[in-house]
Amino acid sequence: MASKAAARLKPLFDRVLVQRVDAVKKIGSVYIPETAMTKISEGVVVACGPGGRNQAGETVKLTVKEGDKVLLPDYGGDKIELDKTEYTIYREAELLGILSD
Amino acid sequence: MASKAAARLKPLFDRVLVQRVDAVKKIGSVYIPETAMTKISEGVVVACGPGGRNQAGETVKLTVKEGDKVLLPDYGGDKIELDKTEYTIYREAELLGILSD
Amino acid sequence: MASKAAARLKPLFDRVLVQRVDAVKKIGSVYIPETAMTKISEGVVVACGPGGRNQAGETVKLTVKEGDKVLLPDYGGDKIELDKTEYTIYREAELLGILSD
Amino acid sequence: MASKAAARLKPLFDRVLVQRVDAVKKIGSVYIPETAMTKISEGVVVACGPGGRNQAGETVKLTVKEGDKVLLPDYGGDKIELDKTEYTIYREAELLGILSD
Amino acid sequence: MASKAAARLKPLFDRVLVQRVDAVKKIGSVYIPETAMTKISEGVVVACGPGGRNQAGETVKLTVKEGDKVLLPDYGGDKIELDKTEYTIYREAELLGILSD
Amino acid sequence: MASKAAARLKPLFDRVLVQRVDAVKKIGSVYIPETAMTKISEGVVVACGPGGRNQAGETVKLTVKEGDKVLLPDYGGDKIELDKTEYTIYREAELLGILSD
Amino acid sequence: MASKAAARLKPLFDRVLVQRVDAVKKIGSVYIPETAMTKISEGVVVACGPGGRNQAGETVKLTVKEGDKVLLPDYGGDKIELDKTEYTIYREAELLGILSD
Repeated sequence: MASKAAARLKPLFDRVLVQRVDAVKKIGSVYIPETAMTKISEGVVVACGPGGRNQAGETVKLTVKEGDKVLLPDYGGDKIELDKTEYTIYREAELLGILSD
Repeated sequence: MASKAAARLKPLFDRVLVQRVDAVKKIGSVYIPETAMTKISEGVVVACGPGGRNQAGETVKLTVKEGDKVLLPDYGGDKIELDKTEYTIYREAELLGILSD
Repeated sequence: MASKAAARLKPLFDRVLVQRVDAVKKIGSVYIPETAMTKISEGVVVACGPGGRNQAGETVKLTVKEGDKVLLPDYGGDKIELDKTEYTIYREAELLGILSD
Repeated sequence: MASKAAARLKPLFDRVLVQRVDAVKKIGSVYIPETAMTKISEGVVVACGPGGRNQAGETVKLTVKEGDKVLLPDYGGDKIELDKTEYTIYREAELLGILSD
Repeated sequence: MASKAAARLKPLFDRVLVQRVDAVKKIGSVYIPETAMTKISEGVVVACGPGGRNQAGETVKLTVKEGDKVLLPDYGGDKIELDKTEYTIYREAELLGILSD
Repeated sequence: MASKAAARLKPLFDRVLVQRVDAVKKIGSVYIPETAMTKISEGVVVACGPGGRNQAGETVKLTVKEGDKVLLPDYGGDKIELDKTEYTIYREAELLGILSD
Repeated sequence: MASKAAARLKPLFDRVLVQRVDAVKKIGSVYIPETAMTKISEGVVVACGPGGRNQAGETVKLTVKEGDKVLLPDYGGDKIELDKTEYTIYREAELLGILSD
C-alpha cells in the first residue's frame, strides 16, 4: 500500500504515518464506496511509532496498527512527501476513530 | 438506530460518536416530548471508544454506553457525515449528563 | 423540588444540576429571607454526578448532595431548560460553598 | 465576629470566607492600630472549607483556621454580601500570610 | 532587622517576606559594599512560610531561612507596607540565589 | 560525519545535535536519492544527550542514536554554527521519525 | 575564574550562574579558538544550585558543574552584574549542551 520511501520511515513515539484515502483512490484492494465517504476524512496507517511515553517515561503501546483505516481530524498533522506521494504524520491521540469494513 | 456506515466506526480512546436527536426525530422507539426538549441539546450515543488513558498510560473505561441518551454541550465536538446522516464525535468528558426515560 | 424532566437527568462525572433560588421562589419548604439574600447567588442541587476522576482514572466522590443549598459563582455553568424551568450545570469545584439553614 | 448569615455558609474545598478589616472597624475585640495598617489588606477568616484535593483526590487540610487574621492579595477573591456585610471568598493558596497579635 | 509589624506576619506556604537592601541601608550589622552591589537586587529574608505543597499535598520545607541575603528577580513579588517600611512577598522559587558574606 | 567542533559538544538532557542533509550533500557514505527527498527535511544525528527527566527526576534514555537519519519538523530547533557548518539542536520529542536505508 | 563577588552567590534550586565567554576572553587557562566560536554562545558555569525539585518535592541533582563550558540559548536568563562583571543566571534545563576541550 505504501511506497518504498514510506517503508523506510519509522515514526517516533506515538506518531503514525497516514496516507489520506482521497489521495489513494483504489490502490490495491482498498475500496471506498462513494456514498459512505461524504464529508469524512479517511486515511490508511502506513507506519506506526513504538508508542508515546507516560509520566514515568515508560513506552505506552499504540492502539492503531499498520493497515488500519482511520478517521482523520480536520486540522493538524505534519504533511510530508515521499516518492511524489503525500503523507501526513499524526500523534495517535489526534486520530478520531478506526473504520472497519 | 445508527446507519450502517456509523456501525463501521470505532471511536478511539475516550471518544464517543453521537447522533443529535433533533436530527433523528422519532427513529425507532425514542420518543422526545416537545415540551421537555426546549433548549436542551440531546443526542444518542451510537459508538464508544475503549476509554481514555490515565497518567500511567492505562485505559480508563467510559461511563456512557451505546444507546445512552446524553445531554450535549453547546460547543465542541467534531462533525462528520456518514450515509447522509450527521454525527458528532465528543470526548466523553465533554458530555454533560445522561437522560433516562 | 425539581421538575420531572430534571429527575430524568443524571449529570456525568463531577457535574451537578442546580436550580437557582431566584428562579424558584418558595417552591415547597425552602424559605429565603429577603435580607439574607442580597447580592448572593444561591441555588439548590437537584442532581449530582457520580464524581470526577483523579489522575489514576478513579472516581472521586462529590462533597455536595441532592437538596444542598449552594452558593454559586458569578460566572460559568451551562444553562439548560427542562419543562420551562431553567437549570444550570456546574462542575462541583465551581461551587463556592454550602448554605445551611 | 461574623454575621448570622455568614455562620450559615460552609465554604467548599480549599475556600475560606474572609471579612476585610477595613470593612469591620473594631467589631468585637479586634483592634487594628492605624500605623500598622498602612497599605496592607487585612482580613479575618470567618469560615473555612474542609480542604482542597490532591492529585489522588484526597482532601488536604487547610493551614488557616476560623478567626485567623490574614494578609490578603491585591486581586482575586469572589465578593458576596450577607446581612448587608461584604465578604470575600478566597482559595487558601491566594492568602499571603497570617498576622499574629 | 525587621520591624515589629513584620515580626507579626507569618507567610503562608512557600512564601517569604523580603526587605530590599536598597531600602535598608546599613540597618544593624548588614554592610553592603557599594562596588559589589551594582545592578543586582538584594534583599534580606525577614519571615518564611512553612513550605509549599507537593502533588500529594505534603509540605515541602523551604531552602532559605530568616536572615538570608537573597538575590531578587527583576519582576514579581507582592509589595506591602508595614510600620512605614516596604516589604515584598515572594514565592521561594522566584528567588535567584543566596548571597554569603 | 560531524566536524571536530561538533564532536566537542555533548547535548544536555533530551537534546540532539542534528546536521540537516541538504546542508551535507554526500559527505562520507550517506547517499540521498534525489527522488526520495522531495519536500522532506532530513538530518543526521551527530550527538545525543543522556536523556530527559521524568516526573520523578530520573533520566529517560533517548530512542535515537548518533548516526540515525531523522525526519525533521518544519519549525523549531536552535540553530548553531561550528567550524562553518550549521547544526540544529532539537529536543528528541520534536523529531518526527527515523529513516532507514 | 569568577570574581570574588560571584563566589559569594549560591544559586537556588536548578539555577546556574554563567559567565559568557565573549565577556571573558582568555581569563586564566580557558582558550577559545576563534574558528570554533562562530555564531555560538558559550559560557562558563561559575556557580550551581543544589538542584530543582521533582513532583514529590525531592531535590534532583544538576548535570552541569562548576567550571563546565556550556552552550547557551539565544534567549532567556537573568542578567546581573557583580564587581563590574556581567553574569547570567539560567535554569539548568535552558542550557543546550556541554562543550569539552
